[in-house]
Amino acid sequence: MTRQELTLQIKSKRSFLCIGLDSDINKIPKHLLDLEDPIFEFNKQIINATKDLCVAYKPNIAFYESMGVSGWNSLKKTLDYIPENIFTIADAKRGDIGNTSKMYAKTFFENLNVDAVTVAPYMGSDSVTPFLEFADKWVILLALTSNIGSLDFQNTKNEDGKQLFEKVLETSQTWGTDKNMMYVVGANRSEQLSEVREIIPTHFLLVPGVGAQGGSLEEVAKYGMNDECGLLVNSSRGIIYASTEIDFAEKARQEAQKLQFKMDILLSEKGI
Amino acid sequence: MTRQELTLQIKSKRSFLCIGLDSDINKIPKHLLDLEDPIFEFNKQIINATKDLCVAYKPNIAFYESMGVSGWNSLKKTLDYIPENIFTIADAKRGDIGNTSKMYAKTFFENLNVDAVTVAPYMGSDSVTPFLEFADKWVILLALTSNIGSLDFQNTKNEDGKQLFEKVLETSQTWGTDKNMMYVVGANRSEQLSEVREIIPTHFLLVPGVGAQGGSLEEVAKYGMNDECGLLVNSSRGIIYASTEIDFAEKARQEAQKLQFKMDILLSEKGI
Repeated sequence: MTRQELTLQIKSKRSFLCIGLDSDINKIPKHLLDLEDPIFEFNKQIINATKDLCVAYKPNIAFYESMGVSGWNSLKKTLDYIPENIFTIADAKRGDIGNTSKMYAKTFFENLNVDAVTVAPYMGSDSVTPFLEFADKWVILLALTSNIGSLDFQNTKNEDGKQLFEKVLETSQTWGTDKNMMYVVGANRSEQLSEVREIIPTHFLLVPGVGAQGGSLEEVAKYGMNDECGLLVNSSRGIIYASTEIDFAEKARQEAQKLQFKMDILLSEKGI
Repeated sequence: MTRQELTLQIKSKRSFLCIGLDSDINKIPKHLLDLEDPIFEFNKQIINATKDLCVAYKPNIAFYESMGVSGWNSLKKTLDYIPENIFTIADAKRGDIGNTSKMYAKTFFENLNVDAVTVAPYMGSDSVTPFLEFADKWVILLALTSNIGSLDFQNTKNEDGKQLFEKVLETSQTWGTDKNMMYVVGANRSEQLSEVREIIPTHFLLVPGVGAQGGSLEEVAKYGMNDECGLLVNSSRGIIYASTEIDFAEKARQEAQKLQFKMDILLSEKGI
């Protein structure tokens, strides 16, 4: 999907919501467990209930991989089921030497046909650039993550007083453009979003951490939204596990609707 | 596998060789392609031909994942086929927020039952520690990788004049011990092995980059070997693709034998 198509979708749906499909066999409603593919059935009902409210779905690959072959099948069926005009993100945090990253890129962009993959920056340029060789596909590079461990290295200041995440943002500008790269910035790091926006004013940001992880949507929009929105705000557990009863899809819709309603207002306030 | 068992294996086999199973359907001998599971058949013959010469096998997960369900099956069969007394490493470069790293850990340590997983450090403590909660299982944390992109961030000096990889080594000392953590240090970074050994004198290092990537085994031993060896030196393409004809397993054995022969001498020189 192109940047323009993604932005048009945001404007027409009045939403920049990404729903994280962290679908866990131990957490989905019990009545689904008798079905042939409970994970796919769960995802299908979540997608049916929310597809008009969100612009992206983000399956968390760990949850599918943990189920081996059957998980891989559920993932493939889920991705095939998501309507083509919705952006898909494989949350995989991959990154390896060139020939290996190329294999990962083939897996996600050719076999699974997702629009974007999350990639870790530690191994530098040639671990990321193989993902950038596919037309209309995206790398979403980790910059400032939402977890407590992000404080271990990401904020370390270098000799020039720059923090590591700032160096990642700057260095990676030579690898791709705002048409094939986005960055992960945690919602609970909203106080640093202004610093991020100084370096990358036009890029899309994927913002996890609203909901279960405690970030504020309003703060994210205040410091992170640009003239074309430039945000995908993710919620996973807060939506998909809103209920673990028979009404789970309806309750998921209600939670997604609450966020979409706020997003509509935030977009309007920005004149989008 | 425990540290003691791994060290005993090194001493008895006179080898610290790890063979990387980067098994690629486009590179394996053509005569295998008619078989039901060419990748497993290739791995099986490589293992049969080399299992007395190496102490570890390291499947590169990207190559299996790129083949979807059939790749996953080949990987599982390969891991089941490797003799129990040989160390197994899933080269996966994973790492995510705590609940997700926990899923990856379950996948590799419970479902696939490997001894170790490579993990990327960018997301810090809680992306790594879930892998350390399994008895006799190992995290192999990226420190100084062998690729050109490693220069982008890993050598960045912080305010105290410490390079990022040194900070990774130091910080991660609070997460695990030399009995459940190793570190990746590229063979072409041998000039920095002394710096690494100053910080972690007793830990095992997984050293890729000998062979196709051009590192020197002698230099690695000179600067990296400790009193118990403390090294796993990996070669992938240099061994498994030594020939692409019907004699591939025999030629792989010859390449492995050359390395094992040198390793025997290096161990003896160190009095091991």
